[in-house]
Amino acid sequence: MAAQRIKPFINRTPVLTCQSLNQMVNAELFFKCENFQKVGAFKFRGATNAVLSLSEKEAERGVATHSSGNHAQALALAAKNRGIKAHIVMPENSSKVKIRAVEGYGGHIIFCESTLQAREETLARVVEKTGAIFIHPYNDYQVITGQGTAALELLEEVKNLDVVMAPVGGGGLLSGTALAVSYLSPHTQVIGAEPDGADDAYRSFKEGKIIPSINPKTIADGLLTSLGDKTFPIIIKYVHQIVSVTEEAIVSSMRLIWERMKIVIEPSSAVPFGALLENKIDIKGKRIGIIISGGNVDLDNLPF
Amino acid sequence: MAAQRIKPFINRTPVLTCQSLNQMVNAELFFKCENFQKVGAFKFRGATNAVLSLSEKEAERGVATHSSGNHAQALALAAKNRGIKAHIVMPENSSKVKIRAVEGYGGHIIFCESTLQAREETLARVVEKTGAIFIHPYNDYQVITGQGTAALELLEEVKNLDVVMAPVGGGGLLSGTALAVSYLSPHTQVIGAEPDGADDAYRSFKEGKIIPSINPKTIADGLLTSLGDKTFPIIIKYVHQIVSVTEEAIVSSMRLIWERMKIVIEPSSAVPFGALLENKIDIKGKRIGIIISGGNVDLDNLPF
Repeated sequence: MAAQRIKPFINRTPVLTCQSLNQMVNAELFFKCENFQKVGAFKFRGATNAVLSLSEKEAERGVATHSSGNHAQALALAAKNRGIKAHIVMPENSSKVKIRAVEGYGGHIIFCESTLQAREETLARVVEKTGAIFIHPYNDYQVITGQGTAALELLEEVKNLDVVMAPVGGGGLLSGTALAVSYLSPHTQVIGAEPDGADDAYRSFKEGKIIPSINPKTIADGLLTSLGDKTFPIIIKYVHQIVSVTEEAIVSSMRLIWERMKIVIEPSSAVPFGALLENKIDIKGKRIGIIISGGNVDLDNLPF
Repeated sequence: MAAQRIKPFINRTPVLTCQSLNQMVNAELFFKCENFQKVGAFKFRGATNAVLSLSEKEAERGVATHSSGNHAQALALAAKNRGIKAHIVMPENSSKVKIRAVEGYGGHIIFCESTLQAREETLARVVEKTGAIFIHPYNDYQVITGQGTAALELLEEVKNLDVVMAPVGGGGLLSGTALAVSYLSPHTQVIGAEPDGADDAYRSFKEGKIIPSINPKTIADGLLTSLGDKTFPIIIKYVHQIVSVTEEAIVSSMRLIWERMKIVIEPSSAVPFGALLENKIDIKGKRIGIIISGGNVDLDNLPF
């Protein structure tokens, strides 16, 4: 099982509560803090599960992906922990901090132009040349079940949750969360939250088919991607609702969580609480679990 | 005992660790996170212990203090929890955030000019008029033993620490920490850390007598005060060393802790790790406990 497999490598992250935020929204909130996860985000769970699920033969070939975000670092560290190579295709305009982080985890970086086409072509070349196995950042069952272990730990620790909320971009975290919740606590609702400016999951959920993001625009830069053909069916089946949130609410939510909870979270992590601030769902008196997805922010470019 | 007395009212704060900071200083660090304490700082421990130590008769008279910082909020909430009145003398130029916070905890605010003389005179008047009992922010044995409970919890949770470090301003936290450590783990060294720009404790410790701070200047605004006649003798007897730290190291340390540990801490809390960054003590391979004193910062005025 994913949870047992990745346990020796991941942090068991704390569940934090905050009286003043509870009072603000009239509910009891339980924050599962994946900003304290290794590499600073839940992505390390999925990448670790995917890397450890490879056979010896597969693992020898190494792994590869294209990403400029948390998945790049997560895959580099997961590969390092197994002693195999990670080839990371990154756009040449990636920030130095991110490049150094991937290098710090021993990742082998291949630079390309910053278009999606260039990334995919470069990745295809790398895979062909090295034989490395492509680990998709979210549209991969091992990645999905790995991400679900955060909700699993939350449910082990906090009983009788009425709702579990997670942000949704490509849907890896949300689909993994929904699988874990439906299995361990079937009476608990699962609600995804995304920015108004990247509301493809909301529209896809409503229409019953994948509607890709076109020119998404939001400060929550971890949520720009569209749902995949593996994440979407799980979301349709196991998620109860998807809500979308204004940029103003995302920034207010982020600032409130920093100020009141004294934790550093990235904008994507602020989206679920933003939905509560905007009264997007009825939660009065309920017990709500919220997955805080990560804490990788550029302190020189804060939105407040 | 202080720990039992305050237990129902305080947060049991977590002890966090961070691989990358460990590697940076070649030691094993254990951060006791009082930024997660109620009102956002360890001060709530001392204030709660002082308020709960009053007899019924004393408590009826209410409590009073002058403070524009964490002690004001801490005393207001501690008094509210006991159902008694707290009179807080605050300079009229205190920030609105701090005024609202004290009001939010039900404190009764009396404004005065911002000089120390005006504060003390106003407080004396309030005490005379109301009969309230003055609770000093640090020079008070109940406050000191209350602050010591943070170290006590740290020592319960982490065994065999070689050193415990705490920032030092008026000395309430450091003297309480030293008492707890000498009692529970006598082989563990206690080291205080303060800014170069407010190094009265360093100089007092060296000279063996209280040398007050004159025009202290530092970003660590919780550490501007001078040692008191109750904190100093405890520090002289039970503290092994006091080190002072440059402003640059304080800011770097604060930023590193935000970035790597994903927690919001105030500048004063960054001083002990700043001392490690500057190699002020030999800690190679050792196990070091660090008290993170608080997390109340103005997000509109960050030093980076």
